[in-house]
Amino acid sequence: MDNGERRVLTESQLEQSAAAAKKAAQALQILNNDIKNQALKAIYQALQDRAAEIYRANQQDLERAAEQKLPDPLVKRLYLDRHKLDVLKEGISGLLKMPDPAGQIKLAEQLDQDLNLYRVTCPIGVLAVIFEARPDALVQIAALAVKSGNAVIMKGGTEALATNRALADILSAACHGILPEGWLHLIEAREEVDRLLALDQYIDLIIPRGSNAFVQYIMSHTRIPVLGHADGVCHTYLAADVDPLLARRVVIDAKTQYVSVCNATETLLFDQALTQTLMPELLTDLINKGVSLSADAATAALLPAFDFAPVKNWHYEYLDLALSVKAVPDTEAAIRHINTYGSHHTDAILTRDQTRAEHFMQAVDSANVFWNCSTRFSDGFRYGFGAEVGVSTSKLHARGPVGLDGLMTYKYKLYGKGQIVADYSEGRSHFTHQPLPPDQAPQV
Amino acid sequence: MDNGERRVLTESQLEQSAAAAKKAAQALQILNNDIKNQALKAIYQALQDRAAEIYRANQQDLERAAEQKLPDPLVKRLYLDRHKLDVLKEGISGLLKMPDPAGQIKLAEQLDQDLNLYRVTCPIGVLAVIFEARPDALVQIAALAVKSGNAVIMKGGTEALATNRALADILSAACHGILPEGWLHLIEAREEVDRLLALDQYIDLIIPRGSNAFVQYIMSHTRIPVLGHADGVCHTYLAADVDPLLARRVVIDAKTQYVSVCNATETLLFDQALTQTLMPELLTDLINKGVSLSADAATAALLPAFDFAPVKNWHYEYLDLALSVKAVPDTEAAIRHINTYGSHHTDAILTRDQTRAEHFMQAVDSANVFWNCSTRFSDGFRYGFGAEVGVSTSKLHARGPVGLDGLMTYKYKLYGKGQIVADYSEGRSHFTHQPLPPDQAPQV
Repeated sequence: MDNGERRVLTESQLEQSAAAAKKAAQALQILNNDIKNQALKAIYQALQDRAAEIYRANQQDLERAAEQKLPDPLVKRLYLDRHKLDVLKEGISGLLKMPDPAGQIKLAEQLDQDLNLYRVTCPIGVLAVIFEARPDALVQIAALAVKSGNAVIMKGGTEALATNRALADILSAACHGILPEGWLHLIEAREEVDRLLALDQYIDLIIPRGSNAFVQYIMSHTRIPVLGHADGVCHTYLAADVDPLLARRVVIDAKTQYVSVCNATETLLFDQALTQTLMPELLTDLINKGVSLSADAATAALLPAFDFAPVKNWHYEYLDLALSVKAVPDTEAAIRHINTYGSHHTDAILTRDQTRAEHFMQAVDSANVFWNCSTRFSDGFRYGFGAEVGVSTSKLHARGPVGLDGLMTYKYKLYGKGQIVADYSEGRSHFTHQPLPPDQAPQV
Repeated sequence: MDNGERRVLTESQLEQSAAAAKKAAQALQILNNDIKNQALKAIYQALQDRAAEIYRANQQDLERAAEQKLPDPLVKRLYLDRHKLDVLKEGISGLLKMPDPAGQIKLAEQLDQDLNLYRVTCPIGVLAVIFEARPDALVQIAALAVKSGNAVIMKGGTEALATNRALADILSAACHGILPEGWLHLIEAREEVDRLLALDQYIDLIIPRGSNAFVQYIMSHTRIPVLGHADGVCHTYLAADVDPLLARRVVIDAKTQYVSVCNATETLLFDQALTQTLMPELLTDLINKGVSLSADAATAALLPAFDFAPVKNWHYEYLDLALSVKAVPDTEAAIRHINTYGSHHTDAILTRDQTRAEHFMQAVDSANVFWNCSTRFSDGFRYGFGAEVGVSTSKLHARGPVGLDGLMTYKYKLYGKGQIVADYSEGRSHFTHQPLPPDQAPQV
């Protein structure tokens, strides 16, 4: 969408921005928690002092959205009012209370007398985050970047152009003189995203948030590591011994509480022993909630009283009031189905049997595996991470909801007194390999 | 190199192997430490009982190498004798003593009464490891795969064809009936590697070990995550206050102890205050060790007594008795040089000043940052990891030498009693977000 207002950087301007972010990232590596918290406090204060500017900018976006007759849910996400600003400030207060995620010693080992090794957390470097309409995401991501010590290049939704620009300006101004210049960049044009994908000498990690097709596109067009999830084909499996009332509550929540999100249940698996008992009631509940049901022929034949559409594809994410339903002979069949057709995001078992639940949770190869609760719980805020940059279905680095931890890497620091490898390889010295107390400052 | 002996799988056979590995990986997910250790013991015993077969196969490879007049260092790596077999068995004994890397609780949190969240380590799934001539790597990688609970597809060097085949057969036979079939696959042809790169539905992680160009090629031709390092342009920086004797010992070791490895120093940076004091002695030491020196014009002008070749490229990995040398005005300039031209592998500062060393180690953006010791120490065995699959210069997932830890991911397990998200979003329930004791079994 070109509304004639976007700033479009030339290729060389964009590369300069990325290079500036890289330079800022190197300066951010050595900031301590006090300075990062000082920046967060300045952001908090600026959001308070300059709220009127934010509302005015948001009003411009809302007016343009009305002219362009954008759909209601999009407009709702675009809205940035006093309540949403309060939530943002609360999030910043939460980050202020957290310990510094950098400089944490994760391993401490004496390799030999006076040769001590430490694995210490540190920021990743430069993040590129691409997010959708919701302009409050800009503040959340920037605040996470500050606390984690990463520089960040952001591309927000075009619908929120004015709000994003106002927020980025306010945040940059607030941190001027506290953080290194270049820590925050906002880009505004879709075509710049393609150019970003080639800048692997400057950008360490891309976090795309958006449609399945968009995330897949990013993953296929860059050598930069990508953190995110393409889709959420989540399952809820009902074992034969499930508590019927619990099942009816949890399945309705998992499917209908909010349908357009990645952790909503898209496929319901049930032990065929439940065909005549729980299923008629449960399916009636779902239909009463407006859910349209799909099933394979075998399952449909078991439940002739219901009107099922055929299932075309078991790896299908409805993001709507719709559900695939399948009868399985036992828990092993449910596990096989989920591991074959799922997206390794969130899958739940409802059962009274702890042994069965533990087996399911160990054998299902997904980022989040739940017992007796709704798949909708897999979320950084609900997990108590304070904020999240997204949910990862990658098995590398960060998996599941990604908070501050996922924005950190580590380095090995080795403190010596002149040791050389030749002494060890020629038998004059020998490694001791003894653990050191991990909560002490490096011993020298 | 086609020697007429390799098995080359068709595209569909290769896909079947990968699918079998995926299936095995799902069975490996639920194995406990006792069974994995039982498999390691069986491997240990088989290496002992069937040593003669291994030596015979190795003899075939050595004879073919002699016919083909392969270079001496390659033949040396190819050799698998009693001593190397003992080292392999020692490595397996080490793994047997280690705790299970799977099932470790890394985070435990009560989200609400009876709603408990655990972050638990688990295997990644299917690893594809591509390694060079050294056949003992096959046993090390297989043993790491067993202990970590990952299935593995391996491609060894063609020079070690007979030895690799014998080892793979012996390991498979040893673990028959203990581990799920399909946990270990050996492929033998280079063209199969290209096909592997497309099998992202089965393979979770590729670990290539080999030349710079080879690793770059792999990284550019697959959507599967790659763990490894393309190159090792390591630096040693001499601060003005360095202990001269320490510097001479450490630099000689870092450059000459073993030149063809990624953690050898390739660039020596020195504070220009050392030009008339330490440098003439140190450079003479290096020349006496056969090291040829390169420098930029400014550095060469400072040291007219020495014969420098020009430096063409500061990002240059010699892997030989050769060294780039550069004078810098201060520590900040050294840090900038390393962050600009290095490969983020291993970089050392030699100084008497702890504050200067700590600053260098925090500001240099490399996987391994050392004070007063040789860059050659960055290695999984020297770090006490027991074994390593390689050194990673990626900032995501595992960085530096990668041992068992790097072969694990985690999942979130949430234990509920029927909780639904609607209760929390509508204010009937509230999250408590209290830490739970991390060393207890999940509370239900």
